[in-house]
Amino acid sequence: MIMKTIQSDNYPIYFDNSVDELVKFVKKGHYSRFFILTDDNTAKYCLPMIKDHFAGFDNFDILEINAGEESKDIDFCIGIWRMLIDFGADRKSLLINLGGGVISDMGGFAASTFKRGIDFVHVPTTLLSQVDASVGGKTGIDIDSIKNIIGTFTQPKAVFIAYDFLDSLPPRQILSGLAEMFKHGLIADAAYWEELKKSDLRHPAPELIYRSIEIKNKVVMEDPTEQGFRKCLNFGHTIGHAIETNSLINDENPLSHGEAIAIGMICEAYLSHQKTGLSENELTEITNVLSNLYPKYPVEESSFSNLFTLMQKDKKNHNGKVNCTLLSHIGQCSIDHICTVYELYESLRYYAAL
Amino acid sequence: MIMKTIQSDNYPIYFDNSVDELVKFVKKGHYSRFFILTDDNTAKYCLPMIKDHFAGFDNFDILEINAGEESKDIDFCIGIWRMLIDFGADRKSLLINLGGGVISDMGGFAASTFKRGIDFVHVPTTLLSQVDASVGGKTGIDIDSIKNIIGTFTQPKAVFIAYDFLDSLPPRQILSGLAEMFKHGLIADAAYWEELKKSDLRHPAPELIYRSIEIKNKVVMEDPTEQGFRKCLNFGHTIGHAIETNSLINDENPLSHGEAIAIGMICEAYLSHQKTGLSENELTEITNVLSNLYPKYPVEESSFSNLFTLMQKDKKNHNGKVNCTLLSHIGQCSIDHICTVYELYESLRYYAAL
Repeated sequence: MIMKTIQSDNYPIYFDNSVDELVKFVKKGHYSRFFILTDDNTAKYCLPMIKDHFAGFDNFDILEINAGEESKDIDFCIGIWRMLIDFGADRKSLLINLGGGVISDMGGFAASTFKRGIDFVHVPTTLLSQVDASVGGKTGIDIDSIKNIIGTFTQPKAVFIAYDFLDSLPPRQILSGLAEMFKHGLIADAAYWEELKKSDLRHPAPELIYRSIEIKNKVVMEDPTEQGFRKCLNFGHTIGHAIETNSLINDENPLSHGEAIAIGMICEAYLSHQKTGLSENELTEITNVLSNLYPKYPVEESSFSNLFTLMQKDKKNHNGKVNCTLLSHIGQCSIDHICTVYELYESLRYYAAL
Repeated sequence: MIMKTIQSDNYPIYFDNSVDELVKFVKKGHYSRFFILTDDNTAKYCLPMIKDHFAGFDNFDILEINAGEESKDIDFCIGIWRMLIDFGADRKSLLINLGGGVISDMGGFAASTFKRGIDFVHVPTTLLSQVDASVGGKTGIDIDSIKNIIGTFTQPKAVFIAYDFLDSLPPRQILSGLAEMFKHGLIADAAYWEELKKSDLRHPAPELIYRSIEIKNKVVMEDPTEQGFRKCLNFGHTIGHAIETNSLINDENPLSHGEAIAIGMICEAYLSHQKTGLSENELTEITNVLSNLYPKYPVEESSFSNLFTLMQKDKKNHNGKVNCTLLSHIGQCSIDHICTVYELYESLRYYAAL
């Protein structure tokens, strides 16, 4: 399989010799200055892999923040803006976001609003950010722990996917990215779902990552600002996001994004069986694949009302109604299903009883 | 003269029965909730004029901030985001920016980034914001007193111009708006400049305000994100902004925006005479009209280097070069002229010697 550069919404996604392509891109852009935004983890494991390539440049600085979702707060974003001011960034500067989803979401937001917008590119270093955050043009930061409450729809100028970065990832982070890959199969491509199931999931093959990005890109190209069709990407996320936020607030060792989304997908597959014609066999298959792969998490009856309140506050919902994306088959989704509190509780009970 | 609704970049600018049009707009939009952002001055003088019209609605809240440029800081913007969260704003909510440039710039930014963008409209209540900030899609906030350093290009859904609001304005605020109107004549319409000169400037006629908005709108429609042509609106602003910021930092009673821009226009008319063929007669005419209207301000030789540093930091400039928009004639401008520190100092001396 040849993994050609994908043309997204006016920007390329490179898969081959990506670090060389990045250097070429920076040279060709004649930027006045450029900045590499990264976190302490990435600075340790990934930055050394690209730093040598920039040895010939003297017009760049490294902006380093702490790793973790807490760093996505507006206060850290103000810190990035201040660093850009202090280092003399102007409208012809470039921001390179080297890291996971926190770096690309926040770096994208900081760049899209600095002096009303400077160029930025993503170099995603985690599986999750390669198959999810780096493509689609969503930027975002948190306020008071409300995820992505502030953000823009702004496309990067390019995305550079380098599989080598994944070698340094712990298994739990690979699993986190895999959840989004399974989702891509479930909502849009039954053959891809089949292939994923039987592949070596500890080391996802480049071809599988490529296919996942292809699917996501196709969806967001059709509906860049989430007016309709793009909502299919929300499968598993209405319930999954609530479980993720609840865990972030309450658990000492909180769930990863993918772990929470896997739970959300099982619950929403249950709802799909109740409401949109997903067969019992398909529900069982989805449940088995995901619950064999991800550790069981205790979803207690006592947390249901909290979870429901979080779902109502989700920025995709309004008027207190909870809207889910469901499946009609494996490989085919159906958007805009309002679920009642009773239905949502039943789906949580289905997961809890596994 | 009939003042028809102007169709801007996908949004209308209303001039006739504007408050009624606003109410119609809100009804037709079926918004889940709406919010009126205003400052304490506007709440006192202008809000009462529109509040009765909304008597039939029960799904709105008033968000009030302090008047003044200090309120345009990121901290106040975070306050607005928090109020929107607390009052249950969702993606189908509307923000109505009722006030001067601070309200429209900051309200526009807050709305364009809240949940990745909610609808907003402008109801400008000052002459300056009617002829300048409300049209063109620039939003912005300040960090560390650096003006509009953070912002987006986002169009409002509509603009409602109501001349009645101007009755409550002090003369100094009328003068502030007039500077931008004179600028519109100087860069694009000699006949309009002539007409302005001989009109009653204490009470600018609706027709003159309308023509000013027409000119600004025509310019921004051609170049919404300031790639080239839109720079013509910067005439007077390279030097004017530096003088304005310097005054904000140092003067107890700082210059208004228009007062600073009037000084900038005299200096940049001088540069136009030196560099782009503006005749001596035209320079004298511009100098006389503006210096008769605006109070003389002491621009000291000792402040020149500070002013030059501020010009270099202007977000429109890069690599430390200072770029001015100049005039070739009254009614015709010429963009992208790099001015040396010597030329800029000479122009400041020209003003200082008047």
